[in-house]
Amino acid sequence: MLYLESLYSKNANNMKKSVIRELLKLTQQPEIISFAGGLPDPDTFPVQDLQAAADLVFAKQARSALQYGTTEGDNELKAELIKFEERQGVRLSPDNMIIVSASQQALDMIPKIFLDPGDYIIAERPTYVGAIQAVQSYQGRMLGVPSSRDGDGFDMEELERRYLRAKNEGLSVKYIYVIPDFQNPSGVCWSLAKRKALLEFAYKHDLLVVEDAPYREIRFLGTPIPSLYQLDQEGENRSIIIGMKTFSKILAPGLRVGWVIARPEIIQKLVVAKQAVDLCTNVFSQKWLAEYLKTGKIYGVIAHTCELYRDKRDFMCDMLEKHMPRRSDITWTKPEGGLFLWLSLPSFIDTDEMIHKAVAEKVAYVVGSAFYFDEPEHNAMRINFSYSSKVQIEEGVRRLAKVVKAEIVAHETGRTAVAAPTGV
Amino acid sequence: MLYLESLYSKNANNMKKSVIRELLKLTQQPEIISFAGGLPDPDTFPVQDLQAAADLVFAKQARSALQYGTTEGDNELKAELIKFEERQGVRLSPDNMIIVSASQQALDMIPKIFLDPGDYIIAERPTYVGAIQAVQSYQGRMLGVPSSRDGDGFDMEELERRYLRAKNEGLSVKYIYVIPDFQNPSGVCWSLAKRKALLEFAYKHDLLVVEDAPYREIRFLGTPIPSLYQLDQEGENRSIIIGMKTFSKILAPGLRVGWVIARPEIIQKLVVAKQAVDLCTNVFSQKWLAEYLKTGKIYGVIAHTCELYRDKRDFMCDMLEKHMPRRSDITWTKPEGGLFLWLSLPSFIDTDEMIHKAVAEKVAYVVGSAFYFDEPEHNAMRINFSYSSKVQIEEGVRRLAKVVKAEIVAHETGRTAVAAPTGV
Repeated sequence: MLYLESLYSKNANNMKKSVIRELLKLTQQPEIISFAGGLPDPDTFPVQDLQAAADLVFAKQARSALQYGTTEGDNELKAELIKFEERQGVRLSPDNMIIVSASQQALDMIPKIFLDPGDYIIAERPTYVGAIQAVQSYQGRMLGVPSSRDGDGFDMEELERRYLRAKNEGLSVKYIYVIPDFQNPSGVCWSLAKRKALLEFAYKHDLLVVEDAPYREIRFLGTPIPSLYQLDQEGENRSIIIGMKTFSKILAPGLRVGWVIARPEIIQKLVVAKQAVDLCTNVFSQKWLAEYLKTGKIYGVIAHTCELYRDKRDFMCDMLEKHMPRRSDITWTKPEGGLFLWLSLPSFIDTDEMIHKAVAEKVAYVVGSAFYFDEPEHNAMRINFSYSSKVQIEEGVRRLAKVVKAEIVAHETGRTAVAAPTGV
Repeated sequence: MLYLESLYSKNANNMKKSVIRELLKLTQQPEIISFAGGLPDPDTFPVQDLQAAADLVFAKQARSALQYGTTEGDNELKAELIKFEERQGVRLSPDNMIIVSASQQALDMIPKIFLDPGDYIIAERPTYVGAIQAVQSYQGRMLGVPSSRDGDGFDMEELERRYLRAKNEGLSVKYIYVIPDFQNPSGVCWSLAKRKALLEFAYKHDLLVVEDAPYREIRFLGTPIPSLYQLDQEGENRSIIIGMKTFSKILAPGLRVGWVIARPEIIQKLVVAKQAVDLCTNVFSQKWLAEYLKTGKIYGVIAHTCELYRDKRDFMCDMLEKHMPRRSDITWTKPEGGLFLWLSLPSFIDTDEMIHKAVAEKVAYVVGSAFYFDEPEHNAMRINFSYSSKVQIEEGVRRLAKVVKAEIVAHETGRTAVAAPTGV
């Protein structure tokens, strides 16, 4: 008899199945209104223009698009991305960039090249669940720093306090991981002052900073704030930022293409890691995206996406206003960009338990606890507003509010809450 | 000052840059005839039929093809692959399969879920360099078993001896990794008897076997031999085989799609690993391949590929016969399938040193030493016959023979060999 359990690695035993992706499966039941996933609205996909670009690849370079490519990534795609970054004020040369199989691959390879078992990274509390999973898969650990009360990035005093304590305890801290633009899950956007303060902190303590920026372009209110990469470049230019970007939120996640920008030595380490991970990113998709970027139409797509998501975000906030009980302990973020908002409920509500009642009511969210490495908070949830239609948003929020109200009533009357199933 | 070197993980320090991929870059110089890569002949890519299949995806399901997909893989593609496997005598259900971003991803994820630092796998000597890299990136180790004299798979006595010694020394051996069909690099195909013996060995010692089979369909001589997966299924059906397959050699490597077959528990572990590694494989490519497979045309492509490669392999063997010095210590394999042959030279020749002379003569190969985890043999090379044209094969072998002859002359006259550069 083969005892499989005894064969698995510690890494494997540390891997947690993504709550989100498991929820996604659950929520593929037809009648469920899901605010759980992080899916873009498919109305934003420029299908015709993408088909035209694919046709061009077939016409011009089908054979090389179907062949193996370099691990670093397609040169033409890199050239187009350098122009794309330049418009945002970031100057790059090709050796500052590696094309990856979307951001999650970068989230995997960065801990791979930096973390030994037991090593720490510093991250926001809460932070992206995919980053947590990747760090755990290398037996890394996270030192969580909460946001300031202003919701504009780290509480810098807490950062300093926790970092120094960790150093005093002899812990090995390898880098800081942040999502400064419309953070997943909280929707928070870091202020310029906080970005500068973080950079100063990193300079002072000789730390690398991983800047995960999948939502950066999806700003639908306010003015763009320079990225950490840009601030470093325009400041002391110490090249301590590793920037991560992806086409998943600005064009089409199905193509699984992203890019990492960093100093050449780090790019070279990532190239070596990628050789053993998947050799190269889908070559056809890279050449396809290069052709598409040449049309310049992506800027229109991004503008349209922002408009659409602002409208949906406004509508969702209106619906929350309309349907949620009015209590000072029920609040939600009103993000200026991105795909998510973060709903906090009274402390007596456990969203991990409530999810089953919500699914019985045919509405889904991601439990807030999924976004904590340890000591999770249990009274919050992440809600996506990009994917559902307005009709679904209204009905979904109505269902969600019904479940929340039932929890409150149950708490106040001392009974166990049972959401009345509507014929389920 | 940031000291990057002190930040890298042990994994990163264990990663070796792939000799092959570095050589590939070198050999992209226009005048070089490269026998180094493992590239299919682009003449085998069915460009028109693939474009028709892509058009169908755009017509029928563009929006879902551009959206996120499940980690397990596209259901339609899985259904088509189940039929594909059935034609080879392997019965599967969808939960026996995960779609991966080509074989290298499986080569990465399998050690990820099984190997802790210092754990061992058993592998052929020599074996595929990409497998070595992946195992090293998890600080795993390899116990190499040489082929028998008959060149038909493991020397089974050696396997038993080395395995038992490892067990006695208390080493943790996690699985056996083999490429039974037209092995990379040697071109060797395991006999039926050896496959059965390996299965018996694995049964007896409760070992998993990873069967890497990228070249299985590229058989151009002889009759197919059942895969280990099939032999297990038709025999005791203990589900101890993990099978790895890819479209890279039978259709188009640029699409980066492969599949792993195994018992459902292992597939589930791989799904969890893949969530943290890249979320899902390129969705467009999966749906595209499903459409293409539905046409049934892949069997014609494979037949044509086999014919073309047999012709090239024959021609390369003829050219070696014609140009190489006739000595009993210069031999090469004559594989019945796959993309490579293995050339052994006199023991006084070091192909690692000779490669520079070869490149000066504008011909390239992969040094044999790249295919050993430890104690490499230095007098061999891997030669690819699928990519070059016949004109290139003749000229390339002529150049290679010239370099080899110069080495022999230098050895016999006691001088250091210097290949006469032809105007370089």
